[in-house]
Amino acid sequence: MERLPGFRDFYPEPLPHQDVWSADLRNYIFETWRNVARRYGFREYDGPPLESLELYTTKSGDEIVGQLYNFADKGDRAVALRPEMTPTLARMVAAHARNYKKPIKWFAIPQLFRYERQQKGRLREHFQFNADIFGETDPAADAELIALLIDSLRALKLTADDFVIRLSSRNAWHEFFQRGTHSPDPKPQTRDARRQTPNPKPQTPDAAEYEFYQIIDKLEREEPAQSDAKLKALGFSLDVLREFITAAKPTAELDAILQNLAARGLGDFVKIDYNVIRGLAYYTGPVFEAFDKKGEFRAIAGGGRYDNLVKLISGGKVELPGLGFGMGDVVLTELLEERGLIPEFGPGTDLYVMIEEESLRGETLSLVQKLRETWNVDYPLRPEKPDKQFKRAVELKAAFTAKLDKNEQGNRVIRFKNLSSREEVVVSSVDELYEREHLKKFWIEISKHKRTGHTQ
Amino acid sequence: MERLPGFRDFYPEPLPHQDVWSADLRNYIFETWRNVARRYGFREYDGPPLESLELYTTKSGDEIVGQLYNFADKGDRAVALRPEMTPTLARMVAAHARNYKKPIKWFAIPQLFRYERQQKGRLREHFQFNADIFGETDPAADAELIALLIDSLRALKLTADDFVIRLSSRNAWHEFFQRGTHSPDPKPQTRDARRQTPNPKPQTPDAAEYEFYQIIDKLEREEPAQSDAKLKALGFSLDVLREFITAAKPTAELDAILQNLAARGLGDFVKIDYNVIRGLAYYTGPVFEAFDKKGEFRAIAGGGRYDNLVKLISGGKVELPGLGFGMGDVVLTELLEERGLIPEFGPGTDLYVMIEEESLRGETLSLVQKLRETWNVDYPLRPEKPDKQFKRAVELKAAFTAKLDKNEQGNRVIRFKNLSSREEVVVSSVDELYEREHLKKFWIEISKHKRTGHTQ
Repeated sequence: MERLPGFRDFYPEPLPHQDVWSADLRNYIFETWRNVARRYGFREYDGPPLESLELYTTKSGDEIVGQLYNFADKGDRAVALRPEMTPTLARMVAAHARNYKKPIKWFAIPQLFRYERQQKGRLREHFQFNADIFGETDPAADAELIALLIDSLRALKLTADDFVIRLSSRNAWHEFFQRGTHSPDPKPQTRDARRQTPNPKPQTPDAAEYEFYQIIDKLEREEPAQSDAKLKALGFSLDVLREFITAAKPTAELDAILQNLAARGLGDFVKIDYNVIRGLAYYTGPVFEAFDKKGEFRAIAGGGRYDNLVKLISGGKVELPGLGFGMGDVVLTELLEERGLIPEFGPGTDLYVMIEEESLRGETLSLVQKLRETWNVDYPLRPEKPDKQFKRAVELKAAFTAKLDKNEQGNRVIRFKNLSSREEVVVSSVDELYEREHLKKFWIEISKHKRTGHTQ
Repeated sequence: MERLPGFRDFYPEPLPHQDVWSADLRNYIFETWRNVARRYGFREYDGPPLESLELYTTKSGDEIVGQLYNFADKGDRAVALRPEMTPTLARMVAAHARNYKKPIKWFAIPQLFRYERQQKGRLREHFQFNADIFGETDPAADAELIALLIDSLRALKLTADDFVIRLSSRNAWHEFFQRGTHSPDPKPQTRDARRQTPNPKPQTPDAAEYEFYQIIDKLEREEPAQSDAKLKALGFSLDVLREFITAAKPTAELDAILQNLAARGLGDFVKIDYNVIRGLAYYTGPVFEAFDKKGEFRAIAGGGRYDNLVKLISGGKVELPGLGFGMGDVVLTELLEERGLIPEFGPGTDLYVMIEEESLRGETLSLVQKLRETWNVDYPLRPEKPDKQFKRAVELKAAFTAKLDKNEQGNRVIRFKNLSSREEVVVSSVDELYEREHLKKFWIEISKHKRTGHTQ
C-alpha cells in the first residue's frame, strides 16, 4: 500500500529514508513561525482545506487555476482543495470584519494543494506560513509585514548573507504601463500581427495590463526574444523595461517602506527590484519576494497588497484593504539544509525511569505518574535487564535516569542520575526535589535540557 | 461566497458569531494534547490528508466506508480524504518499522473527513488526537495508552466526576461468541428465517463474528427487540448478552490493565463495560471508550488493540502488534463548554508601545524591534492620539505600555507602565532591563502574563 504521488509522510527522527520528511523539522519550522508571528502581535486563524471552486476561478489568475486540485463532491458541488490561503482569509474577514478592531493582524499555517502533471520530486502539497494585515492603507503596514517575514527567516538563523527581499510595486508598473500605452509610438502593426485578426476588439485596460504583468512575472524564466515579442505586441520593448528595472527608482510608498525597515535595523535585508511583480491577479500595490542570495532556489516567500480582494470576494459588500505574504516549507527546507541550519532533533526525553526489580513496578508507575506532571518521562513497558534499560535511556538521549531504591536505613529513596556528568541525587520523595533549595541546580539542568530539546 | 456545508472556520477571539469556531480554543486543546503526549514520551508524526481509497475499503469496516469523502482525482485514481488516521499510520510504520526501536510511541493531530447526508450541525471534518504504540503485546502498553488518554482529559481540567473510560475486550466477546456458537441450542430455525434461503452457505466464522460485534456495537442505540432478533439469528439472545455484560468479569489482560492504572492512581477513571466493542473491523484485543459521566454526549474518545493491521496493510510483509486511540475536538469542545472549562483567551500582547510624538516613530520602531526579541509587542501603525493608543493597549489586554521620553537632564529614557498596578519603570535602554537586578521583578511580572496568556 503506497501513499499517493506528490504527498509526504512526516516521520519522527531518526529518519528512516531519504524519501520521507522529518516531523521534528516540521515542528521546529512551524513553532518558529508561530513564535515570531506572536511576537509581532499576529493571531492565528484557520479555514477549511476544501472550498468552492468558485472562490478561486476568477480571483487568483490563470496560473493557479490551471493547477487546481479540484473535483465534484458527492453532492455534485464543484470544489477544490485550497491552492492558497488568501481567498479563504478574504472570505472569512469579509464575513465578520465588524467584530475585529483594525488593523487585523492574523496568521495561519495551512496545507495547500495543487494538481499538475507529476514531475520528478514535484510535490502536490506543501505547508505555508501566511501572515496578513487588514484595515491599514499606510505603507507602515507593508513594512510591518515585511519585517515579520525577515524576522521569521532570521529566527531560523538565516542572515542578510543568505537571503534578500526584492521589493517592487504594481503601482510603479501601472504608471509605467499607462505612460507606455499613451506614448506616441504604440506600434500598432505588431499588435495586429499578434492578434491575427484584421480588426481586433479593443482590450479593456485591465486585461491588457494584467497580460503585461504576466510578461514581467515571466521575464526571468522566459527567452528574452519571446518576452520582447510579447511586449512589442503591447506597445513596449524589453530594452525600455530593462532600463526601468535597472534604474529601480522607488515610488513614494516604496521609499516609506525602505525607511521604516531601515529604522528597525532591517535595511540590509531589502532592495528595490522591479523584476518582481507576482503572478496572482489580485495584487494592487507593493509586492515582494524573498530569495536566497546565491539564486540557487525558487522564491522562499512572496506577497503584497491586495486592497480590492475583500470587496471582490464579498460581492462589493465589504471594503477593506489587505496585504499579506506566504512562505512555503519546501524551498525553505532546501535552503536550511544547504546552509547547514537544520538542528539535531531528539526524542526530548527528560527522564528515563528504570525498574531493576519487578516487585517495584507498581510503585515505580506511581513515580512515573508523579514525574510526568512536569517532565517528559519514559520507562520499560515490560521486564528488561538493567543494562538493556540503561541502553534505552541512552538511545532516548534522556538527561537523567531515575530509579527506586532503599538507603542504608532500609527506607525508600529515589536515585536520579545525570547521564552527562554521572552525578547522582538521592531524595526520599519527588516533592523533596521541589522543596529543597540545594536541589535547584538539578532542576535547572533538566530544564536546560528541556529548552534545547527542540521538542518542547 | 460561502464556505462548504459541514466545514469550519476558526477565528481568533472575540468570536464574531455563534456559527464559527475559536482558533484560540483549538490551539489550547492542541497544545494540551501535544504537551501531555510528550510528557508520556510520544513523538509527533503526520501523513497526507488524501490517501488511496483502497487503504480504507477492506480494513476499517462498513460503517466508515459508507461515509468516505472519496472521489476520482485528475489522474483517475480512486482517492479519499482520510476518515481516520490508523490506516495511514499502519502504512507508515509498515514501510519503515526497522528504523525505530520498539516500542514505537507516536501521536498526531490530523484533520479527518467524512461525507454523509448533511444533518443539521453535523460536521464533515474534525480534528482528532491520535496516539499509538507499536511493538508491545503486554497489557502494560494498553495501560500506558489509557493513562495518556486519561491525563489528556485531566490536563483540560476534567475530573473523575466528569468522565469515565469504559474498558472492554474483543477477546472476552470472542470467547463468548465461540462458546455460544458451540452451544447445544443453536436455534437453527431463526437462522434460516433470517437468511431467507433454504440452504444458506455457511458463513466463515470471521464474518459471522464481525456481524455479532456490529450488533453489540449498536446495542445502546438500537431497539432491544431488533437487537434481540439479530442476535437470535446468530444463535444468541439479548438476555444472555445482558447477563454477560452485567457480570463484567475482567479477562486476565483487562485485570492487568486495571491493576496497572490503579498503581498510577488512575483507578477511579476506568471501569469494565462490555457494552463497548468498537465499530471498526480491525480491533483484536482490549477496546475502550471515554464517555462523559452524565451520558449527555457521544463518545469523547475511543480505541483499542489492532495486532493484525500492520500485517494486513503491508500485505503480510511486516508483523507488528499495535494499539491506539483517537479523541476528536468536537464532542470534547461541547463537554468543556457544558462544564464551564473553556478558559478566557486574549490577544497575548505583552507590551504596547506608544508613539506620542511622530518625530520619534523611527526611534520607536527600533525599540519595538528590540523588545520583540523577547516579547509579544504591538504599536500604532499610523499616527494616533495618545488616548486612542492607550485604549488600544487596553483592548489588546497588554500587560505593559512602553514609550520613549526624555528625563529632566534631557536624556533619552524608556518608560514602562504596568497597566494593572499603574507602576512605572524608567530605564535608559532595553539592555538595562536585563542587567539591573532590581528590575527582575518587572520581568517576572511580564513573564507571568505571558505564561497565562494561553497563546503560546
